[in-house]
This record gives sequence, C-alpha cells and structure tokens, in this order.
Amino acid sequence: MNIRTATEEDVPLILRFIRELAQYERLEHQVVATEESVRATLFGDRRYAEVLISEVPVDNGVDPCGFALFFHNYSTFLSRPGIYLEDLYVRPELRGHGYGRALLARLASIAVERGCGRVEWAVLNWNEPAIRFYGSLGALPMDQWTVYRITGEALENLVSSDSSRG
Amino acid sequence: MNIRTATEEDVPLILRFIRELAQYERLEHQVVATEESVRATLFGDRRYAEVLISEVPVDNGVDPCGFALFFHNYSTFLSRPGIYLEDLYVRPELRGHGYGRALLARLASIAVERGCGRVEWAVLNWNEPAIRFYGSLGALPMDQWTVYRITGEALENLVSSDSSRG
Repeated sequence: MNIRTATEEDVPLILRFIRELAQYERLEHQVVATEESVRATLFGDRRYAEVLISEVPVDNGVDPCGFALFFHNYSTFLSRPGIYLEDLYVRPELRGHGYGRALLARLASIAVERGCGRVEWAVLNWNEPAIRFYGSLGALPMDQWTVYRITGEALENLVSSDSSRG
Repeated sequence: MNIRTATEEDVPLILRFIRELAQYERLEHQVVATEESVRATLFGDRRYAEVLISEVPVDNGVDPCGFALFFHNYSTFLSRPGIYLEDLYVRPELRGHGYGRALLARLASIAVERGCGRVEWAVLNWNEPAIRFYGSLGALPMDQWTVYRITGEALENLVSSDSSRG
C-alpha cells in the first residue's frame, strides 16, 4: 500500500469517495459538491483542506482504496494548531486490511511534523465499528461537548442583525 | 460598541481573554499558551486563526469587552469552507448587553462574505446559559456526532506505527 498527497487530477476520484462516504453515512441527500466546487476549494487560490489518497498495487498499476481529507484547527489553550480529520474513507470491499489505520498513522506523522499536539474528528454515534476502532487507538470521546451549527435562514437572520460594520 | 480585527499588539489581551475563558470553563489547568506561542501561531508566517475584538467606549478611550477566535473548516458534502468559532468570550461583568451576539453576528457576516455556508462551534454540555442563547439564534446541536481526539502517548504510538513513509 502507498499513501500520497492528492493532486488536481484526483478531483473526480475525491468526489467519488465523498459520495460513497455520504452513502455509507446515510447522508447522500446532503451532497451538493461538484467537480468544479471541489477543484476550486481544494486546488484553487486558497486551499481549504488537504487530501491523502491510499492506493494498492494491482496488475496494471494501482487501485485507489481510500482517502483522508483534513485541515488545521487551533487550540487557544495550547496556542498550537491541530489537525482536524473531516473525512476518512476506505472502500467497503477493502476494509479490515489496515488501510484506515495506515491513513490515520500517516496523519499522526504529519501532525507531529507540523508541531500539532492532536488529531481530532467526529463520528456518528451509531457507527459502532468506527467507535471501537478509534477506541483501540487510544482516542478519547469529547462527550462533554456538543457542536452547534447555524446555517440557512438562521444564519441570514444573524447577518441582518449585524450592526457593527463600518 | 465597536468590533475590530485583532493585531499583533493585542497578543497580551488575547492571552488574558483565553485565560479568563478557561477559568469560566473550569479548564484553566489546561492553558499552556504564552505570549510567544500566541504571537507565533496567530501573527507569524502561517496564521492558524483570526481574532475579533469588541470594545466599548469609555471616558479615556475604549475598553475591550470580549473576543472571538475562529478559523476555516471545510465541508466535503458542500465542498465549501465554513467558519469554526473556537472561542467566544465576553467579560463576565459585561454580559447581558448583546456583546456576544454582536460578535456572532459579525462572524455570520464574514462567513457569508467569504462564501461559507455555516458557522459552527462547541459548547460544554453544562453551560446552559450558552445553550439557551445559541438555541435562541436558531443554531442546532449536532448531537448525533461525537468528536474524538487522539493526543499524547496514543498519538506517539500511532506515529510509530506509520510504515507508509517513503
């Protein structure tokens, strides 16, 4: 197995993996990403996230088996960046061979190289195989915290109440 | 009230606010940030987060009343950046005057200006005043997800299992 940094040529593959992951998470109705938007946000002037691709050798070359998409977050208490893993995906028929673990291990290496003190990610509460796997690595649930999100109409309402702008 | 973008001169103020917030969250033992590390990570070659400062006019100038520290996260399903609010803090004696709401409204404006579809943040589950406030804005708890974190020895163990590096 090989892990490499994705390039712009991987945009169709990344989008395929995003859709397959959403399908596994039963959230495919939420996917509005297109090749154009993936290209613009990951390989444009400002790159909002980085992508690792894992591949296995096959007779006529290599076969991509999964991906990890991540960006830097920031801890004020540590005043250090961290790594936030937004997506980790291995094709279902290739699971159980350590490809997911290898992607996480590579990400841990990148974190340490870049002076990050931690790697974080979110898991759906019903995804017990994933939770067991993360527990086996020594990852800890931050279950005293709940993430809140504001979007859509509520976000627009908040914008229209912004009286602070000069 | 005025909201402005923090500059390098605000490093001591930012650190003071970080410590006061940690105290409120009963997590002050976790704060290892120093002026040097805040300066290096927020105003160095790579700026890992951005800071807004809110101020109120007083007789002899302005008095800083709170801050918001944020960075961009990324949604693969949308293939758009979002805004993640790491810290929102208003000095306890100045709460209840809408300063926190104003900081959030400014952040919502920045999100929309930058093409972000959402603003997210985490709240401690016991922090009921905050939870009521966020609910009143129309923010939704992402309570089907749990954040996992790997750090310290578990992170080092994962690094040492990284056999993928060339």
